[in-house]
Amino acid sequence: MNKDPRPVANDTYAAAVAESQALEQDLRDPENRRHYRMLTGDRPTGRLHIGHYFGSLQNRVALQQLGLETFIVIADYQVLTDRDRGERIAYFTRQLCMDYLAVGLDPENHPVHIFVHSQVPELNQLFVPFLTLVSQSELERNPTTKDELQHSSLGQLSASLLAYPVHQAADILFCHGNVVPVGKDQLPHIELTRNIARRFNKRYSDKQPYFPRPIGLLSRTPSIMGLDGTTKMSKSRGNSIELSAGPEEVAKSIKQAKTDSERRITYEPERRPEVANLLQLLGLCSGENPEDIAESIGDGGSGALKRLLTEQLNAVLEPIQRRRKEFEQNEDYIDRILARGCAVARERAAQTMKDVHRFLGTYIV
Amino acid sequence: MNKDPRPVANDTYAAAVAESQALEQDLRDPENRRHYRMLTGDRPTGRLHIGHYFGSLQNRVALQQLGLETFIVIADYQVLTDRDRGERIAYFTRQLCMDYLAVGLDPENHPVHIFVHSQVPELNQLFVPFLTLVSQSELERNPTTKDELQHSSLGQLSASLLAYPVHQAADILFCHGNVVPVGKDQLPHIELTRNIARRFNKRYSDKQPYFPRPIGLLSRTPSIMGLDGTTKMSKSRGNSIELSAGPEEVAKSIKQAKTDSERRITYEPERRPEVANLLQLLGLCSGENPEDIAESIGDGGSGALKRLLTEQLNAVLEPIQRRRKEFEQNEDYIDRILARGCAVARERAAQTMKDVHRFLGTYIV
Repeated sequence: MNKDPRPVANDTYAAAVAESQALEQDLRDPENRRHYRMLTGDRPTGRLHIGHYFGSLQNRVALQQLGLETFIVIADYQVLTDRDRGERIAYFTRQLCMDYLAVGLDPENHPVHIFVHSQVPELNQLFVPFLTLVSQSELERNPTTKDELQHSSLGQLSASLLAYPVHQAADILFCHGNVVPVGKDQLPHIELTRNIARRFNKRYSDKQPYFPRPIGLLSRTPSIMGLDGTTKMSKSRGNSIELSAGPEEVAKSIKQAKTDSERRITYEPERRPEVANLLQLLGLCSGENPEDIAESIGDGGSGALKRLLTEQLNAVLEPIQRRRKEFEQNEDYIDRILARGCAVARERAAQTMKDVHRFLGTYIV
Repeated sequence: MNKDPRPVANDTYAAAVAESQALEQDLRDPENRRHYRMLTGDRPTGRLHIGHYFGSLQNRVALQQLGLETFIVIADYQVLTDRDRGERIAYFTRQLCMDYLAVGLDPENHPVHIFVHSQVPELNQLFVPFLTLVSQSELERNPTTKDELQHSSLGQLSASLLAYPVHQAADILFCHGNVVPVGKDQLPHIELTRNIARRFNKRYSDKQPYFPRPIGLLSRTPSIMGLDGTTKMSKSRGNSIELSAGPEEVAKSIKQAKTDSERRITYEPERRPEVANLLQLLGLCSGENPEDIAESIGDGGSGALKRLLTEQLNAVLEPIQRRRKEFEQNEDYIDRILARGCAVARERAAQTMKDVHRFLGTYIV
């Protein structure tokens, strides 16, 4: 769910930030936390990189430790939506699951459910009644839809791409998710999901609202730039470090990272974005703040900065990779985790569809 | 699936007629018949009338007697698509099933499966990958979509209505249906279904086509007009006789049917459409041709015509209503028939989804 930021009306955005902050407060409180359930996920298109790790995976693990129930969708159908054909989807699905487990997500000991989109028929079914609650023009107005079209390999707007935001609403609402980690650009999806939930409730369950009103949890981590220091880190731009990168690969990538000609290291994001980005990455590894790190390196220059980042990033990646190697040796375990996640998701989705049909008044077998 | 005829390019139509006739030949041949499976159905919006009976139900029973495997979908989701809200859908679903059984469809003794659309998650799921094979503009061009919009109670084009033809393709293809009874106006739906099947086969299963190429079975029965003699018989126009109408109700309705002032009965559809329509109905009841019936009534006039029609129509309806009364006393039996039909449909749809996922290359639990 990578997307470049795009303008959102300021007051709407301010309200979203305020809501997100209030949500964070609630999630820290054991009593209030019980009212929340998170839905998040990724497309199985390749291995994850450190941008994913610091930008979202780390936070998922932190919320897991707090006990927040979490559904993580491996969005394989979405790969079909924006590509001409799915390639090695099954392979990348397993790889993604290994990445999740390697970073510390632990479905065996926490209420965390990793499931595969295509393997939950009842979730996909929920998409059908939801489509009746949305107009064509509403979908055409969705700003991210056109953006997706630009970045996809398809020449024209497929019906699937047009309808995808409705499908995402089903992803969120099938499990009554009300916490959805998002970037600023994805707020329109949250808005559509809220509209669908509100319309369903108004039309079919006005006495007691059936679907919750989801809240976008905006990331506090600043957008992580690639090693070129100019664009967001992304595998397709070749400026990323994969979670699976070994010590030499990390050293080599960081050595090639762009910096500037000034000797002394300072933290000046506006004037020296490339250096600031490396300092930020270091800060994410060590928990220190970038200004202090810059101060301590001082005249050590970019050479010292890069050595330190290499060392610390490898220290972060080492246990992740060690765990990953264990999982790579144990495909059965991965299959069990996925089977279990899919079973929980199916059970939840089947119950939701049963409720929905009761509200709609259809015949129920 | 009532729809007024609309112009279709003449050569396309001629080709469709030729295909339909060749299909009829095949269906009469026990050896060739084995290659076919029929998908048909109705929306559960009210009781069926004699227009449905002579126009399609009778033929379904005839094909059942020949042993053709048939899936009959009670299209409850479609009611949500074209109305503001579903009303008594569950009630009308049971009523529709009773009508089916009363006219002689017999799932206990034939490969006929009556199922409820909403109760087959995997069929609805097939809609999702199919959406990736269709462009938005292609859906907008569908002539029946705009027509549906006009006849619905919705003010704007819902995403559901726009996408509905793709859903119908899933209805047909989930069971590998290749025989679809249609009116001329529904040929564009068949065309879209063929395109979806062809594109799927080309993209994902080019060695051996997975989905069949469905053929529209055009009805041989001329469009049955209402008792006003001017528009197609339809419950909403108040010009129909329901299958459940008792002898007095039939007599009363026919007495009020429009005729003309000429004493002598003749069969002249162009010049005397109202009289011709009653003669046609009589022909459908007795199996004689309308010219011969007109000849035999002659100077008996419209009084004699109406008396004869009342008598013969009641003779047709009497056994249907007798069976229906039995089924009305036995809701459990209706539920069993529906449960069984849904189970067969689910099994078939689940297998199809499994195959589809194999072709798409997704992870399979």
